[in-house]
Amino acid sequence: MDETLRAKLSRTPVAGLAAQLRKRGLDNVVIEGLHPLGADAKIVGTARTLRFLPNREDLFASHGGGYNAQKRTFDAVEPGEVVVIEARGETGSATLGDVLALRAQVRGAAGIVTDGGVRDAEAVAAIGIPVHCLGNHPAVLGRRHVPWDSDLTIACGGATVQPGDVIVADRDGVVVIPPALAEEVADAALKQENEDAWVAEQVRAGHPVDGLFPMNPQWRAKYEESQ
Amino acid sequence: MDETLRAKLSRTPVAGLAAQLRKRGLDNVVIEGLHPLGADAKIVGTARTLRFLPNREDLFASHGGGYNAQKRTFDAVEPGEVVVIEARGETGSATLGDVLALRAQVRGAAGIVTDGGVRDAEAVAAIGIPVHCLGNHPAVLGRRHVPWDSDLTIACGGATVQPGDVIVADRDGVVVIPPALAEEVADAALKQENEDAWVAEQVRAGHPVDGLFPMNPQWRAKYEESQ
Amino acid sequence: MDETLRAKLSRTPVAGLAAQLRKRGLDNVVIEGLHPLGADAKIVGTARTLRFLPNREDLFASHGGGYNAQKRTFDAVEPGEVVVIEARGETGSATLGDVLALRAQVRGAAGIVTDGGVRDAEAVAAIGIPVHCLGNHPAVLGRRHVPWDSDLTIACGGATVQPGDVIVADRDGVVVIPPALAEEVADAALKQENEDAWVAEQVRAGHPVDGLFPMNPQWRAKYEESQ
Amino acid sequence: MDETLRAKLSRTPVAGLAAQLRKRGLDNVVIEGLHPLGADAKIVGTARTLRFLPNREDLFASHGGGYNAQKRTFDAVEPGEVVVIEARGETGSATLGDVLALRAQVRGAAGIVTDGGVRDAEAVAAIGIPVHCLGNHPAVLGRRHVPWDSDLTIACGGATVQPGDVIVADRDGVVVIPPALAEEVADAALKQENEDAWVAEQVRAGHPVDGLFPMNPQWRAKYEESQ
Amino acid sequence: MDETLRAKLSRTPVAGLAAQLRKRGLDNVVIEGLHPLGADAKIVGTARTLRFLPNREDLFASHGGGYNAQKRTFDAVEPGEVVVIEARGETGSATLGDVLALRAQVRGAAGIVTDGGVRDAEAVAAIGIPVHCLGNHPAVLGRRHVPWDSDLTIACGGATVQPGDVIVADRDGVVVIPPALAEEVADAALKQENEDAWVAEQVRAGHPVDGLFPMNPQWRAKYEESQ
Amino acid sequence: MDETLRAKLSRTPVAGLAAQLRKRGLDNVVIEGLHPLGADAKIVGTARTLRFLPNREDLFASHGGGYNAQKRTFDAVEPGEVVVIEARGETGSATLGDVLALRAQVRGAAGIVTDGGVRDAEAVAAIGIPVHCLGNHPAVLGRRHVPWDSDLTIACGGATVQPGDVIVADRDGVVVIPPALAEEVADAALKQENEDAWVAEQVRAGHPVDGLFPMNPQWRAKYEESQ
Repeated sequence: MDETLRAKLSRTPVAGLAAQLRKRGLDNVVIEGLHPLGADAKIVGTARTLRFLPNREDLFASHGGGYNAQKRTFDAVEPGEVVVIEARGETGSATLGDVLALRAQVRGAAGIVTDGGVRDAEAVAAIGIPVHCLGNHPAVLGRRHVPWDSDLTIACGGATVQPGDVIVADRDGVVVIPPALAEEVADAALKQENEDAWVAEQVRAGHPVDGLFPMNPQWRAKYEESQ
Repeated sequence: MDETLRAKLSRTPVAGLAAQLRKRGLDNVVIEGLHPLGADAKIVGTARTLRFLPNREDLFASHGGGYNAQKRTFDAVEPGEVVVIEARGETGSATLGDVLALRAQVRGAAGIVTDGGVRDAEAVAAIGIPVHCLGNHPAVLGRRHVPWDSDLTIACGGATVQPGDVIVADRDGVVVIPPALAEEVADAALKQENEDAWVAEQVRAGHPVDGLFPMNPQWRAKYEESQ
Repeated sequence: MDETLRAKLSRTPVAGLAAQLRKRGLDNVVIEGLHPLGADAKIVGTARTLRFLPNREDLFASHGGGYNAQKRTFDAVEPGEVVVIEARGETGSATLGDVLALRAQVRGAAGIVTDGGVRDAEAVAAIGIPVHCLGNHPAVLGRRHVPWDSDLTIACGGATVQPGDVIVADRDGVVVIPPALAEEVADAALKQENEDAWVAEQVRAGHPVDGLFPMNPQWRAKYEESQ
Repeated sequence: MDETLRAKLSRTPVAGLAAQLRKRGLDNVVIEGLHPLGADAKIVGTARTLRFLPNREDLFASHGGGYNAQKRTFDAVEPGEVVVIEARGETGSATLGDVLALRAQVRGAAGIVTDGGVRDAEAVAAIGIPVHCLGNHPAVLGRRHVPWDSDLTIACGGATVQPGDVIVADRDGVVVIPPALAEEVADAALKQENEDAWVAEQVRAGHPVDGLFPMNPQWRAKYEESQ
Repeated sequence: MDETLRAKLSRTPVAGLAAQLRKRGLDNVVIEGLHPLGADAKIVGTARTLRFLPNREDLFASHGGGYNAQKRTFDAVEPGEVVVIEARGETGSATLGDVLALRAQVRGAAGIVTDGGVRDAEAVAAIGIPVHCLGNHPAVLGRRHVPWDSDLTIACGGATVQPGDVIVADRDGVVVIPPALAEEVADAALKQENEDAWVAEQVRAGHPVDGLFPMNPQWRAKYEESQ
Repeated sequence: MDETLRAKLSRTPVAGLAAQLRKRGLDNVVIEGLHPLGADAKIVGTARTLRFLPNREDLFASHGGGYNAQKRTFDAVEPGEVVVIEARGETGSATLGDVLALRAQVRGAAGIVTDGGVRDAEAVAAIGIPVHCLGNHPAVLGRRHVPWDSDLTIACGGATVQPGDVIVADRDGVVVIPPALAEEVADAALKQENEDAWVAEQVRAGHPVDGLFPMNPQWRAKYEESQ
């Protein structure tokens, strides 16, 4: 992702991006149900995907231990990427802990998004890399998962994520943007933000939302004039 | 609501009000499952109701856009009122954002209660009007709702709310009080608070709860004497 | 619990204990779904159990009021014990309030764990005794429960807890340790913590997790050398 | 509803109607989660709506007993109408029993759809009027509901239903059709049924679905020829 | 239970019993969420309770195998008793299979009620002893449970059940009756059944429910006359 | 799968297979929450996997229509194979309808297992190919899914399924058997069935389960003698 786009997306609320995507017919692009683990909720990056499957003892024996798909992914994540983990909304174990969160940070990853749990949650939050997750759980991943493969199109929090998709997160949630749309959507969202900020000023000044939100031609004329 | 009653209710914990309502046979008066969005959880006011229905594309086309039932309600809310939204516990979209929260605040509303989501959550929390909601979601309401009508008896968080019902909220939750009972219940709850504070002192001093909580005649005599 | 063991467990993360228990074949020992009510999440103690049953009006009449099983338990809890309440994951009422939390603290209890609700949540948090619970609710326990009996083996948050079991909690969750295993598991977890901290240093220094986490013989040799 | 339309809809599978509605941009028109109570799942009629609210003791006292909104609705239902009940997916009580089911049948109602429970379920099934519901429950409605009002736009099983909407049900589920679309959608669905039946014949004869389902120009030509 | 009472309860619908219990202030006496496994749903008997706890590997080792609490209970059940199992609504394993169902039948048990699963479901249904359960699951109980103790007051399907409570089940559900109330409630329910059957006749004859259901003095006079 | 093994598995209850797998350390091999759609629940075959992802409008446009992954899989399924679909437990649309069920049958497939919905459910049941699914829904798959890829290891009903795994289903549920274990597990389960049948005879004859189930040396001696 080029730095201009990253800078724009960093200034754009996820709510604004979701609204613009909806206007373009993309209504199923929010990774839902997660919350930011620590104080810093903002993520802007491109998806590096990782898929966990339900724990099955024979497959865990062959795929679960050692240098598994999870660890390979955290060693491979590139600067500006976001590790996005499919964990099927399973809250009965962790999907990462502090060592891997640290590895991601050292690699320059932009954040981690998992629809599963996190262990060492306090330590992970202290590292500072933004993490959106479903909950804390002390158990290692093997209690519920086999780390299986990476760099596939996956499901996370009810949304489909492809490797390379643009991921933006803040306190409102996590949105997935098809890369080809990212610039257009960011520009439109920033423009709308500007309008909404001006609308908010008028509301703060005591104007009703009737005619103003959304703007009728009279209000729009005033807005245009003010710019 | 007169200011004396408002002042009393502002000093009364929701837990105390719920206990008094239960003593009077009202056991189904808690709006459940919500949490305060920001630092300020306390709401005291009277209900202004708003009803959303599940999104249906033909009805959204006729009722969803422009100056819809949602916006009319936020323009109409009176000082001291609480906007209470029926959103069926749906967490897959917002039911309001920062502009409408601001409009409610400017109108002097006492708070907002919704069993749906909030977008621009950080901005809404910053405005300062207390909001109890089910979660954050970046999507506009149209993803899951059609704003339909207002000033009807509605369901919110599993409780029935009539326009004009007294709404009191704090960190323990949100309680609905039939207006004719509000004064009596507030008085009784404050009286009980006083007793409970005295009981807590005795407990802090090392007395067992046996005989003290609830008070037997001996403890009650000491309590009466202390007042 | 002797003070040496308590001191060790106080320094050991729950995640580390859970991992050691799993290595010893104990994979179902996490009380799940709860969160700490206040700022202090850490609990180390032994279980004092209390069982609630679903409210049934005739049984509430005979067992619910006065000096019931709940109050007897809080009067009886010993220093260093943790009150663990079976509330069946029911969130529609409280299972304790500020007076009983205070009584537990005065008795020297190490904490409270309940898979039900808490009322007077702000006051309870202010008391300072660590509480892990499922949520806040203003209603008294009688709305959903009859306090029934104590000192029985119970279910809490999906885990079985026996009176006397060792309970350790932090932000990651709550773990139940069979007493006979506590020392061994604490020692092993602390040893592992030491290793993991060293591994984290290497990761912070830029080393891949490949070969390091878990450690291969080369890394282990360096680790041993460093100690 | 005129008899020609009723006859057409009676021959059309709900799956076919849902597909045609989706093609016309109506994707949120299925009342979900219900099942037919008895052997006869087929309903064709127009909606007569009834709304229940969560039980609240003071409101039940004023609105729950006697000739309440529920009973007035069953006395008023017209031949060919379907009673559609909003019960918020609540399964902890019934929303109707055998007497009212019988009353609906005597009035010539086409069926009953409720996202709540049914009591006297065996008797209701024996009456023969088709009922789609969420489950059986022996308790009277007052355990969970106040029957409130009727002939309003309501939510049922996650779909919005307006009085007069066309309701069609079979074993696949219940669909809501805006009246103005019913004829067009029925015709298109029957046409598609005809095609699909012919496609099924080809599949039964051993042809792959590739090119056939959906039909490419070659298969379509054969199909047209066969008609 | 004496045979007269058993005979009465056998002729009384659970819906009628639940209504009479509610009239006497008992509103939380339905074991919810279960369904009859086979064709025969009717159970009348007294409760013999059995409690399962969440599987914990160390406790399963000591209590799970051999002649455990589950097997002791099925060997001890007396003619006319109903085995009622607390399984916490857990559907991830069975709580009984065909051998134990057969043992209960041979012992003369009146039925089995479990808020857990059943394995060998087809075989169990074929045995003919009525079973109400939450679902079928092929796994042995040890996957999710430790059979723990019996003859205690337990929770099942959200209701509290004491040993000796009267259990009546049919297609509408399972109701728990305090023994001292059983005769009175059965008599009242049968009387009401008689009334309701007469009301149904009037409805079948075309009378509105207005004034008839519930009966006003005029209708009641006609009813009395008809008896 | 060779015919001898298929014949054995056809005679073996799923409950028996699950018990043998558990004895061999495989406790997470049941596809849970599904039910058989029609009268015939028995499936024996090897898995042919198909993966659906959450609907995303841009990806549906590129992958959803025409000869998609779903249709290619049903055209490719081989005799004796079971189509196993990952649908994430989503019940808001179908994952197949009658044409594809027919295609599978014509191809000689042994059954279909999906943790999503089925449309044309009555027609699918009439075709006769055994189907285990989560529910009926009239909507086409595109409402909730994009058919994505096939022949990958997938999650279905909480279990991991690899292409080629042995799938056996009956009314108790669906079990996944690693191919290398199938023969051994079938043999052991049949042996155990034989024992259990003999045990059931003794129980039917009035013997307690104490000592008999499981068999002590005395009972085992009698059993051996009887064979």
